[in-house]
Amino acid sequence: MIRAWAAQEKAGAFSEISYDPGEIRADEVEIAVEACGLCHSDLSLLDEEWGETPFPLVPGHEVVGTIRALGKGVRHLEVGQRVGVGWLARSCLTCNTCMSGDHNLCASAQGIAVGRFGGFGEAVRVQAAWAVPLPDGLDARAAGPLFCGGITVFAPIVAFNVKPTDRVGVIGIGGLGHLALQFLNAWGCEVTAFTSTGAKADEARKFGAHRIVDSRSKEALKAEAGRYDFILSTVAVPLDWKRYMAALAPKGRLHTVGAVSEPLEIPAFSLIGGQKSVSGSPVGSPAVMAQMLEFCARHQINPQVEYMPMSQIDEAFQRLRDGKPRYRIVLENDFT
Amino acid sequence: MIRAWAAQEKAGAFSEISYDPGEIRADEVEIAVEACGLCHSDLSLLDEEWGETPFPLVPGHEVVGTIRALGKGVRHLEVGQRVGVGWLARSCLTCNTCMSGDHNLCASAQGIAVGRFGGFGEAVRVQAAWAVPLPDGLDARAAGPLFCGGITVFAPIVAFNVKPTDRVGVIGIGGLGHLALQFLNAWGCEVTAFTSTGAKADEARKFGAHRIVDSRSKEALKAEAGRYDFILSTVAVPLDWKRYMAALAPKGRLHTVGAVSEPLEIPAFSLIGGQKSVSGSPVGSPAVMAQMLEFCARHQINPQVEYMPMSQIDEAFQRLRDGKPRYRIVLENDFT
Repeated sequence: MIRAWAAQEKAGAFSEISYDPGEIRADEVEIAVEACGLCHSDLSLLDEEWGETPFPLVPGHEVVGTIRALGKGVRHLEVGQRVGVGWLARSCLTCNTCMSGDHNLCASAQGIAVGRFGGFGEAVRVQAAWAVPLPDGLDARAAGPLFCGGITVFAPIVAFNVKPTDRVGVIGIGGLGHLALQFLNAWGCEVTAFTSTGAKADEARKFGAHRIVDSRSKEALKAEAGRYDFILSTVAVPLDWKRYMAALAPKGRLHTVGAVSEPLEIPAFSLIGGQKSVSGSPVGSPAVMAQMLEFCARHQINPQVEYMPMSQIDEAFQRLRDGKPRYRIVLENDFT
Repeated sequence: MIRAWAAQEKAGAFSEISYDPGEIRADEVEIAVEACGLCHSDLSLLDEEWGETPFPLVPGHEVVGTIRALGKGVRHLEVGQRVGVGWLARSCLTCNTCMSGDHNLCASAQGIAVGRFGGFGEAVRVQAAWAVPLPDGLDARAAGPLFCGGITVFAPIVAFNVKPTDRVGVIGIGGLGHLALQFLNAWGCEVTAFTSTGAKADEARKFGAHRIVDSRSKEALKAEAGRYDFILSTVAVPLDWKRYMAALAPKGRLHTVGAVSEPLEIPAFSLIGGQKSVSGSPVGSPAVMAQMLEFCARHQINPQVEYMPMSQIDEAFQRLRDGKPRYRIVLENDFT
């Protein structure tokens, strides 16, 4: 039996449950959870922002822990090894998409906390392919948020071939944005932070921004016209798309990882004139997660984290609802 | 003095004018026009679909002709050489964009018929860099439409690295689409034509389509879900963007060269889920035009053309307004 924190209804409080995960499957590992980051997607599931959520819900998809059991087919990992897991817990491994290395885009990929139980518990089961070993030199206690927030902004930098000579912008300096700034600074780019929160400017500079633009100011945005090779939006609210398209240099790309519910309204001329692109992406593949972790260890890139005991999960969700975390909450397993 | 066909007002009739092009600039060539294709953009200028047009208007931007005069700085071309010219007649050649080979995206590039006189005349002046030599083995009489319609669909195939193993779709089988089908077939792709005109299915197959999809049928579009690496829209009307996004395979791209006036409405989830892109592009650079011409000569790719004498320019514009050309009108110089 595995003990975990579950909500029983939309926006409900969490209570301790105990569930039987059944016999471990041949391709699975069971991970003793050390800590698990709290992501806005957990709140979206709890509050049913994306449609119906199956309850009871055990969210949590930024897991760091140690392997405590292996399925009989797992050869490349061992008990006691420290691994991390993000949003996805399983993919088919055999479709063309998986076989091309794009496991994160597999049509039958399964979320760790959707129709199964996630990381806010003492242990969690996932397909071994999705348990990514932590390299030496990474602060394991703070690493959880890399597995969702981190990989979500790292993957498009890789996928769309952002170059160290590029001028890049990051919209929104929160859980994802503060990692994007660190990645892109270490990547060698000229990095601009677009933020509506003046108080974050100094911190954005600390995370690696060379320049700050006030995203509430139409004049400030207008002055950026033609500058950016790549703008990464981490926010889930409608933006002044036309203005950000104008901020792109010829051949530039506006990329969103923010799941804004209203359609993006993109004038055709804003795409055609400068051969520009708009795109989006979800989390990354295990191979790119491993690249990210190595890159983080090399450049000492860490999420800035507030630690709370997992038993304070209700307080943590409330803090997230209030937009207070700077920049990510990590819940540490205090089951005894 | 150069004689040409000019309209004096919005949607007006053409009449012969004679203009003084002044002394030839050091970097220019003067081309004796043999023939010039009629593009929908000419009609957009005449009818002021894109805002105010400066009149008198001499449109025409799919020029084939022979050089009859050289500016004193032009070393790489010679009198008597056969060249073609498209939408652009000049770029700065010195900005970073030009210096990177993307002359077509130069912020100060000049259209041949915007604020100057275009190809529907006995001669035309352009910057020598934009006069692209025709290779042997190309049917010069029919080649004009390659310089705008052709390069507009060829350039994104190059720019976005469409691969011979890709499954691609072309929306709209007209002046641009019938060339896109030929290019993509010769490129090695699996080619699908999306057309609302059932009568064009057989011709689309002749141009290289392996498959035809009725773009008016929601069910037919729905059945294409997840199939395409690249969909090229050549039409300037709002599409069922969500449905075409769904037709893309993971990492697929929906690319428009059609200057639709309503913004594209793109749901964020349709971008994020499969790491998809939406993009647009204008015409191509001289270097890519030269690649295209060589590719056309090698694969015997030709515009399908209706020839008319240039003096029937009013009839030609009316035929275009009525959507009748199959697939492009070329006006042949009949000044005597």
